[in-house]
Amino acid sequence: MRNIRLRLAYDGTHYHGFQRQDKAYGPTIQGTLESVWAKLVEEEVTLAMAGRTDAGVHASGQVVNYSTSARIPEEKIPKAFNSLLPKDIRVLEAECVADDFNSRWSARWKRYDYLIDNKPIPDTFQRLYAYHVPLPLNTDHMQQAAIYLEGCHNFKTFAAAGGDSKRFERTIYRCKVSREDKGMIRVTCIGDGFLYHMVRIIVGTLVDVGRGRILPGEIPDIIASQERRRARMVAPAHGLTLVHVNYTNESPSTVFEELF
Amino acid sequence: MRNIRLRLAYDGTHYHGFQRQDKAYGPTIQGTLESVWAKLVEEEVTLAMAGRTDAGVHASGQVVNYSTSARIPEEKIPKAFNSLLPKDIRVLEAECVADDFNSRWSARWKRYDYLIDNKPIPDTFQRLYAYHVPLPLNTDHMQQAAIYLEGCHNFKTFAAAGGDSKRFERTIYRCKVSREDKGMIRVTCIGDGFLYHMVRIIVGTLVDVGRGRILPGEIPDIIASQERRRARMVAPAHGLTLVHVNYTNESPSTVFEELF
Repeated sequence: MRNIRLRLAYDGTHYHGFQRQDKAYGPTIQGTLESVWAKLVEEEVTLAMAGRTDAGVHASGQVVNYSTSARIPEEKIPKAFNSLLPKDIRVLEAECVADDFNSRWSARWKRYDYLIDNKPIPDTFQRLYAYHVPLPLNTDHMQQAAIYLEGCHNFKTFAAAGGDSKRFERTIYRCKVSREDKGMIRVTCIGDGFLYHMVRIIVGTLVDVGRGRILPGEIPDIIASQERRRARMVAPAHGLTLVHVNYTNESPSTVFEELF
Repeated sequence: MRNIRLRLAYDGTHYHGFQRQDKAYGPTIQGTLESVWAKLVEEEVTLAMAGRTDAGVHASGQVVNYSTSARIPEEKIPKAFNSLLPKDIRVLEAECVADDFNSRWSARWKRYDYLIDNKPIPDTFQRLYAYHVPLPLNTDHMQQAAIYLEGCHNFKTFAAAGGDSKRFERTIYRCKVSREDKGMIRVTCIGDGFLYHMVRIIVGTLVDVGRGRILPGEIPDIIASQERRRARMVAPAHGLTLVHVNYTNESPSTVFEELF
């Protein structure tokens, strides 16, 4: 048996999340990949994924792994997958990794990006990838608030009900708000792990900071409260993209220079 | 009656071109806009558009105009349209213009951009907006070839059958090939007018130059031949975007600095 690791990109618009569902809610990324593999080599596998992405969430660097007895060489796996996958899922890389590698449990840190379209009239070409907020947003205040989220905290305030975590301590290595071309605002979160809907609740809260409904200085108290109602709404799924999953000992700070 | 000019952006993926069709091929940009206007003010209008875009072609700066007796103020028109339009069409601006203004005949020059995704594995987020060419392309040769297209020429070689033009002289002020981030190649064409499928045939020919099937130095002879078979295939519609239509006396050269 070989343990195969894939790096994937997908447009989550038409999928009911990553995770295979028992009931027929609609196609999922996991289900689509598993059934393509079954067609390719007549073998049933179960994929493990680095980060669960909800319905409508995208990925430019999701990582999955699975064990296989099929003999297809790694270097031919991306092309084989891509020949049968729908065009909104692409396998970017395949690698044979150590038996004990698990894309979820071996991950050291992950980067999620959230795009906000802050123009009065939304960019039609970004409508599936950015959350449209037509009101003016103060990104200096958003950035000040973001800094309070960095570090190791109990993030219960920022966890939606329905997650399977019992421990709420997570470390955010970096939370950055930046204005980009064409009225776009990018929120980048790098952390050792994220609770259910955590990035989207962080973004919803930062948007309220940008609108002046929350002051940046209130964030430490909001974190400390551990009360979900103190944070704001869950920002919509379609603005979120899982960008990168890191498995090396490399500290996130050593790659920040590249990232920003 | 007021003559209203609109600037529009649309994602052409789900439309059968701009022009309203007699038969029910499917929705068109013109038909959608006209029926939204009819819903807004109970008035039937006919739009004139600056540049016809074929099925699947996009626009970030299409311009249309129409005469209306409705009293809705110009500044409220974009919001009114956008409240009823599907999200893949946005009205960006509305202005009251002189009676003799016609978005097609008053246009001095237009800019079209064509995006080529030149990575081995296509970018799934650009799959609707860029033509995937996985083979290596020599963009230096493509740029050399593009320069031969600049100037006033008879472009019959680059006109598909089915157009309604009888004169084939057009002036290309600028044809530029540039490498962008993430393996993308942008072909920009600025000209006083374009024949049926002309930009897409130019791009198809430039791709063949990039692949080494045509030498840049052969372009003048290909133009002079006035034979359609000497140019190459029509590049697919979905890579093409109408970016800008100019109505002022401003020479394209004075704005090139901004554009590039």
